[in-house]
Amino acid sequence: MSAMSAADPAPRQPRLGDAFGSILARCWAAGAVPYSSVEVVERDDGLISANDPARYFAAPEAWSDLERWAWEQATGRILDVGCGGGRHAAPWARKGLDVLGLDSSPGVVGIMRERGLAAQLGSLPQLPDGLGTFETIALFGNNLGLLGGPDRAPAVLRALAEVARPGTRILGTAHDPSGGESVSHHAAYFAWNRERGRSPGQLRIRVRDGVIATPWFDYWLAAPDELATAVADTPWTLETIERASAGSGLVVCLRR
Amino acid sequence: MSAMSAADPAPRQPRLGDAFGSILARCWAAGAVPYSSVEVVERDDGLISANDPARYFAAPEAWSDLERWAWEQATGRILDVGCGGGRHAAPWARKGLDVLGLDSSPGVVGIMRERGLAAQLGSLPQLPDGLGTFETIALFGNNLGLLGGPDRAPAVLRALAEVARPGTRILGTAHDPSGGESVSHHAAYFAWNRERGRSPGQLRIRVRDGVIATPWFDYWLAAPDELATAVADTPWTLETIERASAGSGLVVCLRR
Repeated sequence: MSAMSAADPAPRQPRLGDAFGSILARCWAAGAVPYSSVEVVERDDGLISANDPARYFAAPEAWSDLERWAWEQATGRILDVGCGGGRHAAPWARKGLDVLGLDSSPGVVGIMRERGLAAQLGSLPQLPDGLGTFETIALFGNNLGLLGGPDRAPAVLRALAEVARPGTRILGTAHDPSGGESVSHHAAYFAWNRERGRSPGQLRIRVRDGVIATPWFDYWLAAPDELATAVADTPWTLETIERASAGSGLVVCLRR
Repeated sequence: MSAMSAADPAPRQPRLGDAFGSILARCWAAGAVPYSSVEVVERDDGLISANDPARYFAAPEAWSDLERWAWEQATGRILDVGCGGGRHAAPWARKGLDVLGLDSSPGVVGIMRERGLAAQLGSLPQLPDGLGTFETIALFGNNLGLLGGPDRAPAVLRALAEVARPGTRILGTAHDPSGGESVSHHAAYFAWNRERGRSPGQLRIRVRDGVIATPWFDYWLAAPDELATAVADTPWTLETIERASAGSGLVVCLRR
């Protein structure tokens, strides 16, 4: 290998696009068999991770106990925020529940509709108009991270309150940044976040596929006390935090 | 998703390290089963690709016909340049041939030795001292690409001549950049290379794993006429170029 010389032009950045949707679309087109495509996620400290997107289509038997428990709590009309391939929405629909998927990826919305599942393009905190109201708002697959960070979370929660009814619950799955494996793996990143005035668990990431990448976005592993602060000034009440019997998995329940 | 605001700090680059070796080491430790790790390769136009490193351990039955043919041509003492996991070296050794692997990755050299295969750390064109001479120099798994480019190739070929004997052959596998799939896939990159005065098929890439990455290096898909030019001023003669019955695969044979 020869290192690049000083005269060489700088590497180019990927083009902005629906990298997440194209990864999931290839996986879905191949029957969602393992590693029919690869989800490459880049974090802003240079960390690259590569995962099997087949998990976005996994059947309930393959979920963790905690995720199955959270899934069972959903009642009434459900807004499935960051619905991915529809792994939660499909069995909700089979159970007879009325579920609407919401995703910022056009590719993902296309897959949902191909599966006969209702879905709409949109992202937080600017929800599309005309969604109606929901009895359950699900942020599954660690999508409590879509709260984004301490500054952004109150706006997201207020936006979600506009599509909620009295008594509506937000069910969000997450990982506690202070517990389990994540500490040893990510200690340096958490420290860097503290240095630059960010919440330790505020991950800045993007998804890459071929020559395209999503914009950088913040995905927040909030500590329970940070979450309580973020919720305080919103129409939501932190009702319970359920923990997995092992590991750092959490289910956060907020009540309107 | 929220795009990064202008006030946000720039993303960090990964740290330099043996990304290729660590990817192969995890794969090997897991029994080289498919996707026990993922090889992420970044090209300098922002292209990301993710592949199964189990192929670096694939048995001859899993190779292409052309690769098996090239493998059978090796005779005498063999230098296996860019030996990877030892997929070519292991069956050569089983056949009773004397093979030395050479790789710039300490992790790869460690795997070779764990497998009981002779290997030495080193890269082109600065070969380590004391290698002795070889009757066959193998650049397999598309490693003819390690010639690097039109400027670098003559120095690499002269270095290899120093460990050659009269009659020694270089056997290199490659893909013709003007043939098959690669054109449609990579036309924009080839055009960008032309614009900046590089050979069209001169790929600038690095391997990424976790927070580490290899240095950027040039991997050259040389067209046959470019190869002839690169060889002209060296102690080597372009003997034959064998082509796959389908696709763009090549085996290039040079004679000392």
